Amino acid sequence: MIVVGELINSTRKKIKEAMEKEDAEYLKELAEKQDKAGSDFIDVNAGAFVLNELEKLKWAMEVVQEATQKPIAIDSPNPKAIELGLKLHKNGKPLINSISMESERWKNVLPLAVENDAYVLGLCIDDNGIPEDSETRLKIADKIINGLLKEGKKIEDIAIDPITTPLSVNTNYGLIVMDTIKKIKQNFPEVKTITGLSNISYGLPARKQINRAFIVACMVNGLDGALIDPLDTIMMSMIKATEALLNKDPFCSNYLKAFRQGLIVKN
Amino acid sequence: MIVVGELINSTRKKIKEAMEKEDAEYLKELAEKQDKAGSDFIDVNAGAFVLNELEKLKWAMEVVQEATQKPIAIDSPNPKAIELGLKLHKNGKPLINSISMESERWKNVLPLAVENDAYVLGLCIDDNGIPEDSETRLKIADKIINGLLKEGKKIEDIAIDPITTPLSVNTNYGLIVMDTIKKIKQNFPEVKTITGLSNISYGLPARKQINRAFIVACMVNGLDGALIDPLDTIMMSMIKATEALLNKDPFCSNYLKAFRQGLIVKN
Repeated sequence: MIVVGELINSTRKKIKEAMEKEDAEYLKELAEKQDKAGSDFIDVNAGAFVLNELEKLKWAMEVVQEATQKPIAIDSPNPKAIELGLKLHKNGKPLINSISMESERWKNVLPLAVENDAYVLGLCIDDNGIPEDSETRLKIADKIINGLLKEGKKIEDIAIDPITTPLSVNTNYGLIVMDTIKKIKQNFPEVKTITGLSNISYGLPARKQINRAFIVACMVNGLDGALIDPLDTIMMSMIKATEALLNKDPFCSNYLKAFRQGLIVKN
Repeated sequence: MIVVGELINSTRKKIKEAMEKEDAEYLKELAEKQDKAGSDFIDVNAGAFVLNELEKLKWAMEVVQEATQKPIAIDSPNPKAIELGLKLHKNGKPLINSISMESERWKNVLPLAVENDAYVLGLCIDDNGIPEDSETRLKIADKIINGLLKEGKKIEDIAIDPITTPLSVNTNYGLIVMDTIKKIKQNFPEVKTITGLSNISYGLPARKQINRAFIVACMVNGLDGALIDPLDTIMMSMIKATEALLNKDPFCSNYLKAFRQGLIVKN
């Protein structure tokens, strides 16, 4: 499972405050903790700063990269921010989060995705917004994947986000996401599926429980990765448990290793 | 989701001791707690008493039925114990746990299942033991279901246990159970699937995490019920969350109600 540590996101109140005050220690600690908890990427998002996103992103990326060697998921709908993030990126291969089939975003992010040695996450959204069914989401995924391949992007560098929307708005949204994941993996087994799954519980109480159940349900349907809070030790434990349950962990050796490292908790 | 509270089982050391000493208070408390936590049935098993199972079962059933109005899952491979349990049963409709295609068990439990207004749980086991694949488990389920129907049992009173065995023995066992559940529900949508899922984690550390992930994975594949520890509040929370995620809880109203009742915990 590809874990993208989601915590350094300026839409979160504490992060916005820390970025405002340029509280480097707070960000560094959070980056380090997410790294140690098993993140494969550290997401960095400064998008809540409408007027000075670039300046805040620059500061945050430099601070985060002092604290961790893990690659960054450069998180912005703004092509200028993505461009800057790619320039500042130091360790390993970054993840562009994200491209979509919205005309402007596609046009502006596509060259960045193609010219840089980066993974790229494509959202199942086009100019009509988020489709209400998995068939249309698959069609958008198809366009993104084939559009990227046509420009020379390697298939193993492409990931698709089926788009997770709140269950509190429509109780069918969980099934739509699961079904979209399944269809993408059937049609493009080499493409990774990665989603920001905590949206599923927006507006409901005890969100952690829904998020934990949802990641297992999505993994059963073929999900390869997720933006999550890696400091939720129960969720991280359940990810390892699910990998073993799906026979993706021979002799449960990763599970046992993670347990010895204290990454799997008893209760 | 049908929850069978599994704790009053004499193979558990504390329960065996309590049954030995006839510590009624301990059993009553456990019955009451499991009831309040949302169990639909309370399992009672005195099978660890080889020489005096019947005497211990009688005592336990009387004690438990003083503490809860919930029906009992009468848990024994011994037809004499099941017969006694059915006679002593007071509240609602009991669950016979269990019948199987093992010749002796089938022959002796079948008349009890047919003559009593009880649910019956059939295990996917025959004289060759537990099959190593889901196709053969389905064949046994087919024999059990059709055998019971032929004798006049109603289909809605029949449940099948796909049989959960430890991942530590074979990392394919999780997938076999999920696949068996899926096949049974495809072939017999009116038959319930219920399993004692904590076997999955036998021999591994942090068993709760595996059990929690497994119940979600099985529910995604169509599981209708499980023998579980209902006092694991995180697991109970995840069951409610999964029902909502699978669009079996319109407007998330059961989830919200359970949250207000304190049955869904935040962390």
